[in-house]
Amino acid sequence: MKKAAVIMGSDSDLPVVEKTINTLKELGIPVQVHVYSAHRTPDEARDFALNAADRGFGVIIAAAGMAAHLAGAMAANSVLPVIGIPLSSSVLDGMDALLSTAMMPPGVPVACVGINGAVNAAVLAAQILALGDPALAERLRDYKKAAAEKVKNKNAAIEEKYND
Amino acid sequence: MKKAAVIMGSDSDLPVVEKTINTLKELGIPVQVHVYSAHRTPDEARDFALNAADRGFGVIIAAAGMAAHLAGAMAANSVLPVIGIPLSSSVLDGMDALLSTAMMPPGVPVACVGINGAVNAAVLAAQILALGDPALAERLRDYKKAAAEKVKNKNAAIEEKYND
Amino acid sequence: MKKAAVIMGSDSDLPVVEKTINTLKELGIPVQVHVYSAHRTPDEARDFALNAADRGFGVIIAAAGMAAHLAGAMAANSVLPVIGIPLSSSVLDGMDALLSTAMMPPGVPVACVGINGAVNAAVLAAQILALGDPALAERLRDYKKAAAEKVKNKNAAIEEKYND
Amino acid sequence: MKKAAVIMGSDSDLPVVEKTINTLKELGIPVQVHVYSAHRTPDEARDFALNAADRGFGVIIAAAGMAAHLAGAMAANSVLPVIGIPLSSSVLDGMDALLSTAMMPPGVPVACVGINGAVNAAVLAAQILALGDPALAERLRDYKKAAAEKVKNKNAAIEEKYND
Amino acid sequence: MKKAAVIMGSDSDLPVVEKTINTLKELGIPVQVHVYSAHRTPDEARDFALNAADRGFGVIIAAAGMAAHLAGAMAANSVLPVIGIPLSSSVLDGMDALLSTAMMPPGVPVACVGINGAVNAAVLAAQILALGDPALAERLRDYKKAAAEKVKNKNAAIEEKYND
Amino acid sequence: MKKAAVIMGSDSDLPVVEKTINTLKELGIPVQVHVYSAHRTPDEARDFALNAADRGFGVIIAAAGMAAHLAGAMAANSVLPVIGIPLSSSVLDGMDALLSTAMMPPGVPVACVGINGAVNAAVLAAQILALGDPALAERLRDYKKAAAEKVKNKNAAIEEKYND
Amino acid sequence: MKKAAVIMGSDSDLPVVEKTINTLKELGIPVQVHVYSAHRTPDEARDFALNAADRGFGVIIAAAGMAAHLAGAMAANSVLPVIGIPLSSSVLDGMDALLSTAMMPPGVPVACVGINGAVNAAVLAAQILALGDPALAERLRDYKKAAAEKVKNKNAAIEEKYND
Amino acid sequence: MKKAAVIMGSDSDLPVVEKTINTLKELGIPVQVHVYSAHRTPDEARDFALNAADRGFGVIIAAAGMAAHLAGAMAANSVLPVIGIPLSSSVLDGMDALLSTAMMPPGVPVACVGINGAVNAAVLAAQILALGDPALAERLRDYKKAAAEKVKNKNAAIEEKYND
Repeated sequence: MKKAAVIMGSDSDLPVVEKTINTLKELGIPVQVHVYSAHRTPDEARDFALNAADRGFGVIIAAAGMAAHLAGAMAANSVLPVIGIPLSSSVLDGMDALLSTAMMPPGVPVACVGINGAVNAAVLAAQILALGDPALAERLRDYKKAAAEKVKNKNAAIEEKYND
Repeated sequence: MKKAAVIMGSDSDLPVVEKTINTLKELGIPVQVHVYSAHRTPDEARDFALNAADRGFGVIIAAAGMAAHLAGAMAANSVLPVIGIPLSSSVLDGMDALLSTAMMPPGVPVACVGINGAVNAAVLAAQILALGDPALAERLRDYKKAAAEKVKNKNAAIEEKYND
Repeated sequence: MKKAAVIMGSDSDLPVVEKTINTLKELGIPVQVHVYSAHRTPDEARDFALNAADRGFGVIIAAAGMAAHLAGAMAANSVLPVIGIPLSSSVLDGMDALLSTAMMPPGVPVACVGINGAVNAAVLAAQILALGDPALAERLRDYKKAAAEKVKNKNAAIEEKYND
Repeated sequence: MKKAAVIMGSDSDLPVVEKTINTLKELGIPVQVHVYSAHRTPDEARDFALNAADRGFGVIIAAAGMAAHLAGAMAANSVLPVIGIPLSSSVLDGMDALLSTAMMPPGVPVACVGINGAVNAAVLAAQILALGDPALAERLRDYKKAAAEKVKNKNAAIEEKYND
Repeated sequence: MKKAAVIMGSDSDLPVVEKTINTLKELGIPVQVHVYSAHRTPDEARDFALNAADRGFGVIIAAAGMAAHLAGAMAANSVLPVIGIPLSSSVLDGMDALLSTAMMPPGVPVACVGINGAVNAAVLAAQILALGDPALAERLRDYKKAAAEKVKNKNAAIEEKYND
Repeated sequence: MKKAAVIMGSDSDLPVVEKTINTLKELGIPVQVHVYSAHRTPDEARDFALNAADRGFGVIIAAAGMAAHLAGAMAANSVLPVIGIPLSSSVLDGMDALLSTAMMPPGVPVACVGINGAVNAAVLAAQILALGDPALAERLRDYKKAAAEKVKNKNAAIEEKYND
Repeated sequence: MKKAAVIMGSDSDLPVVEKTINTLKELGIPVQVHVYSAHRTPDEARDFALNAADRGFGVIIAAAGMAAHLAGAMAANSVLPVIGIPLSSSVLDGMDALLSTAMMPPGVPVACVGINGAVNAAVLAAQILALGDPALAERLRDYKKAAAEKVKNKNAAIEEKYND
Repeated sequence: MKKAAVIMGSDSDLPVVEKTINTLKELGIPVQVHVYSAHRTPDEARDFALNAADRGFGVIIAAAGMAAHLAGAMAANSVLPVIGIPLSSSVLDGMDALLSTAMMPPGVPVACVGINGAVNAAVLAAQILALGDPALAERLRDYKKAAAEKVKNKNAAIEEKYND
């Protein structure tokens, strides 16, 4: 089974990115985690991207804040699908990272999720890997059903509380 | 081979979306095109999403402007990866569509590309489908090389013009 | 008398939405509350909207944050007036929800109130229902007068404190 | 049958507002049109709002750009539902008008539609008036169906063109 | 000597507006304070503006948040200079109030200061009143000198701490 | 009678600023026009501000785009009221100039009008000068009435066209 | 004398970037021009940056639009000062490029000029190189004086036209 | 060796600016610190800029918030490279300061770093001064290597924790 890579620009991103790792594991996807910085360790970032396909990765998830170039650096050096998580930092609420991640030039896409969208990056990675893995697709359908059940239970509680 | 679906909210989106269709074809990916509106034909949109996996689609590309709910409506009803193209319309330069497309709630991701990112939606779809299709992966690597060549040729021309 | 429906995308929205419920009750309007998610329980959301008119609802209030599609999903499936409350979430201060709620395509309106405008959604619903209910219109005029009185009392206190 | 009022801040707004008038007429709603400015003819604006209910209006639609106070001025002086159309002007793409229209203080709601949302203001007014008018509700359902038909026809044309 | 009026939309604005009142007093300007709401007590707001010149006011300062119409309502009903203080509220950091205050239509100006610019509103009012009051002009020059002295003292302390 | 100064950062601003000049003249206010740049001729700008009061000016209007520092430079060197006109330039629609003009630090106010608010800068200057000039105040009231008449005439035309 | 490098992400950026080249030449600075793309020819971009200091460059100017990573890629691979020119593209007016260029992580600065600030990038480069080149510093002072003269001449023309 | 000047608009900026001072010292650059306000002590600010080159400064770093004119005031009066640090203040997250600092008119550049980019301002200053100081260039390369080492160590820790 193809692995998912989770790359973050700094280990201070871990509190958000941990949700990506946990969701991937919950969905049964083998995951490897790395700290590469597009600006401080550009060679390590580049080398990872260049070799990711050969090393058995099927998808790369890159989380970064501010002028978030990490996902773009991955996409520049690989034809694997790259998922970008724009992170909010101390100012601008992640709008800088959202634009730096999403507005890629033609031919070098990044699959951008919402600001701090750590869970969604994992689910999207799973959806991508599930194309070649019917069992994972089944787990995703179960995950979706469970999420729906949770909402239905909440609805039942709210209806009980407020409606006659 | 799995097909790519290209859905647009209105046929007035075609001038942008045509680049998605053409790039998919250029990369040898079977494509089907539809006009479904999350707000005007919600049942058609929903039914398409519910059955897309069974009908042989591997990825859904949804393009919409303003309060762009189309990609979200696809993602709500399928575990296939859904790529959203936020379109600019007469005001706000597509910022409304970018936020409506990217900022999805946990568990229901959309892979958002840049505003009017029609080519990138196609390339991203190809990258996703290429995980199970080595020949497509090869074509993507060629596509990437050709893009690099084009830049190198432009660089040569500029260097010739400006540098001694 | 026609009922008001208050729908929220998640029960975590309740602290804000409770003001809507309370204001509706204060104005003597029968209200039913539900948790439906446009993305996690799309069928429940759709079914509610499709049947709301027949079940005696006169207006639907939908509160959601981020890529706030809930009000739009209601409007797609009903000709009842739909009031959208864009909610602020952890980033972007609700600007994402405001644009996702207000910028609807022609023919499928949502009546958008301000970000976190829970009280105003209720008052607007009351104004709509009051068209067919003179007693409610009277209560609304009293509500408006009481609000004015409160300002006048504050003014008197401030004038007493600061002016000679 | 209750009438709809269409108020604009300047007759230069007419090219957009005309779509509101035409859609109201198309839906069989009696309409009166006025030019009142919240800042240049505040008394006329106020007097209209104060007497609108007594003069047979059921809903007030107010269109204005920039620091768009017109809808708010209507809402300050009436308990009728007030629909605001934020208009784009030469700069800022209507974001100023959107915020000036939507972000009303608690107790004095405006039902804000999208920027330049002239058609939606009319449809929303019709949805409101239809609560007490089953024939209008029927016309709205037909209007919705016709809009869906249009999308379906466009879809058929696109499918014919692109799909095998 | 002409008086300055300080109007706020709600007494919850007092913590910011108090700086306006205090600065006016510090500069020796007679001040009257009122709570008028453009939306909840529109007649009181209007009547104040209509009579302000006759009652000896030379300038009106209006502070409001969100869809901040108060300064505009003053300007609509008076030819006195009106200074608007856009206040930040729970979301959007006052950007809504800034645009609602500054972007007035031609012919009806508001003199907008910065978001929460309570001190500046007072100083601007003083600068306006000082045109007809040489003693106030002198006090303003002293105020300016004192502010400069304070910066110079801070500079001296910083230079002492950091420079050799 | 005190004069109004109209300063612009570049003569390319003249098409907008001409409306300020014309409106001042229309209101019978003596005006002097200058091109001073806060960044290219900072000494000329400073010297003008330092001497403006002594040279008979009562108000300074400064128009500039982008990082619009001109009004701030005036305010730094004078206790005259300074009116800033933020100008839109080739990008950002004047939002940069609006923030650069309005968000002044405590103690050094600029009276900011709307983006490209050339007419309003003149009217505001007139309102300020009218405090010491009853005849000008009278002309301002006439100007206001004329503006109201224009709206009323437009209203009459629109009512004639659309209402029965 | 140290050279300036002018790098652009695409030759379509040339109409803006040509002003950088021309201003550098006007100031007597040797310049080399290249087209490198951070995403399409990342190795060429990286190699240039890694060797720029050894090849006699003193400053690197990088111009790019959208998710503008080019200046950041230069800064990641060199300790030369890197000047970034954020370019506006078809949507968002360059706000995406401004944030992608300026908001760099600690330790890897980019000297960001304004959106489309092609002339300023050249002047800034000249100011940097002039630290070690008194003759260039002299030319910069002349350039500054000439710019001031131009403003003074415009001022004289405007004064002649408008003032008595 | 040329000195770096660190100017701040208020000593309340010190908590951020201290990182600039410390980083400069860490890199062995002589530094002088001053509090000059473009608006409160404009003459002191101007005189500093006019004489900075003669007094042995090679670069000026100016930090300011809101309508941040300080860096622009430096650049108006010197041909030294001026680095601007836009500071966030109580509202708008520094977006006002970013635009006020970066969007300078042609011919008068400011080298803008990110919002609150105190460390980067120091590193950029060092990069500029290092052009004439090989030992400083060496220290910068060491600084860059140390930053890379830190990331590599974090990566090792993360890999150890998460990967098998």
